[in-house]
Amino acid sequence: MRFISYRSSGAEGLAVAAADGYRGLSTAALGADLKALMARGPDALLRAAAQLAGGEVIDLGQVTLLPPIPSPDKIICIGLNYADHSKESGFEPPAYPTVFARYATSLVAHGAPIIRPGCSEQLDYEGELAVIIGRGGRHIREEDALDHVGGYSVFNDGSIRDYQFKSPQWTVGKTFDATGGFGPELVSPDELPPGCKGLRLETRLNGEVVQSASTDDLIFDVARLIAILSEAITLAPGDVIVSGTPAGVGLARKPPLWMKPGDVCEVAVERVGRLINPIGEETASAAWPAAHEAQGR
Amino acid sequence: MRFISYRSSGAEGLAVAAADGYRGLSTAALGADLKALMARGPDALLRAAAQLAGGEVIDLGQVTLLPPIPSPDKIICIGLNYADHSKESGFEPPAYPTVFARYATSLVAHGAPIIRPGCSEQLDYEGELAVIIGRGGRHIREEDALDHVGGYSVFNDGSIRDYQFKSPQWTVGKTFDATGGFGPELVSPDELPPGCKGLRLETRLNGEVVQSASTDDLIFDVARLIAILSEAITLAPGDVIVSGTPAGVGLARKPPLWMKPGDVCEVAVERVGRLINPIGEETASAAWPAAHEAQGR
Repeated sequence: MRFISYRSSGAEGLAVAAADGYRGLSTAALGADLKALMARGPDALLRAAAQLAGGEVIDLGQVTLLPPIPSPDKIICIGLNYADHSKESGFEPPAYPTVFARYATSLVAHGAPIIRPGCSEQLDYEGELAVIIGRGGRHIREEDALDHVGGYSVFNDGSIRDYQFKSPQWTVGKTFDATGGFGPELVSPDELPPGCKGLRLETRLNGEVVQSASTDDLIFDVARLIAILSEAITLAPGDVIVSGTPAGVGLARKPPLWMKPGDVCEVAVERVGRLINPIGEETASAAWPAAHEAQGR
Repeated sequence: MRFISYRSSGAEGLAVAAADGYRGLSTAALGADLKALMARGPDALLRAAAQLAGGEVIDLGQVTLLPPIPSPDKIICIGLNYADHSKESGFEPPAYPTVFARYATSLVAHGAPIIRPGCSEQLDYEGELAVIIGRGGRHIREEDALDHVGGYSVFNDGSIRDYQFKSPQWTVGKTFDATGGFGPELVSPDELPPGCKGLRLETRLNGEVVQSASTDDLIFDVARLIAILSEAITLAPGDVIVSGTPAGVGLARKPPLWMKPGDVCEVAVERVGRLINPIGEETASAAWPAAHEAQGR
């Protein structure tokens, strides 16, 4: 099963890939979004998929795609999880995963622009495999961990490098608004090899391959990440683990390669999906003090 | 106005401090929780307070206190924000705030135990002032920033030090389940000096003062934090900024001072509140693999 989340006429919807395109329903009609379905378990997801397949064909030109989980409770990012990238970043291969967080305000859907903020030119790409928790839990054993995966997707962990390194902690540079590409689909684990092993991950900037690796090169694989993280944190349905990026980031190049407005960045994980985001720039109106005031989300 | 959030017979409630104790209603009867009220603006909060004051007196012995905002969208923690603590931690006073995140699964209410996990003995306290966003926004100017504060509270940024330093990023050690004390009340800004300036912050472990500072010693004060953070991140109603801890943490002592089961830790911020948490330990059943399986939150 391959799901997309979308918004149409102000209402959120969920659709499943069918023979003739995506077929879906509003989450109001369905009575749940993808996070809520995963919380109810695999049977609920199967039943929902059958119900969605009876829905209307979704015209992707007429709806706004959302990240597959539009508002995860947790976005848990893993750094330095490919030996080659760890080395290019000046770190030893780690004995324990490097964990940092993003906020949901940083997410953008497939097709939507990743925004270079007005305050920096150092916008970098990081192609990654995203793991979405299905069944939550704490103290999940490594041998049981893949049973807790609800699906996989593709992530571009867009980073503002100068802000990332303004302090010892990277969080600010990793969670600027509209810098984290996520999607297009949530793919259920039955469609993929266990733990998404042996899949090619490639990032292209304006068509040129800038990162290429196998998910086999992950230092901490999906099952280990779930086991290690859940030693500390109760994982919940819909939580997203962004599993780390391989070598080739713009920061490590000489000279550095930054993404700029007008560029197109594409992250493909074999059989999982192809996430494409144009690069946009923060507009004058957005940069105007308090112009983005939000009373809610 | 001073609000508490609570749970009674499975239903969430909200109460306001009145002459004869806290008076409140279920959030279902009120039609909103504190986060939703703040999203509607100060007038909605005032009207709700009046409505709550007409509710029943809440018997604190009969309800379960919750963190004032039980599930913030963002918990934004600031490190090294007092010069003395920055120095004791081996860092220069920073030119930019050190930002890291907690997940909401790490929160515990006033009175509830902070849990020392089975995997570590290095449970440390960090008394802090918490700032809760009322009006959201991005690119908030420093001179307007205090208008965006919805309230203040008290936080104990309980840290698992060995996990905090297992990798270059602190997040895991800062977000173990049930390590972040938060409460008891959300206090509206009109009850306090602007930006909570000039207030004494004290942490006591088993009655002994272990941290004592003035909020005047914050390197980045409340208004500056809001301005700096909102350069990168759209702040939303109910978001919590945990503003940093002064010197005196257990890690910096020789020998180190760790909190252990049976201890009681108290963080008081003058006029804001007194947050008391006993220290508990992870039970065998909780530590048992997958015993904490959660289908939802």
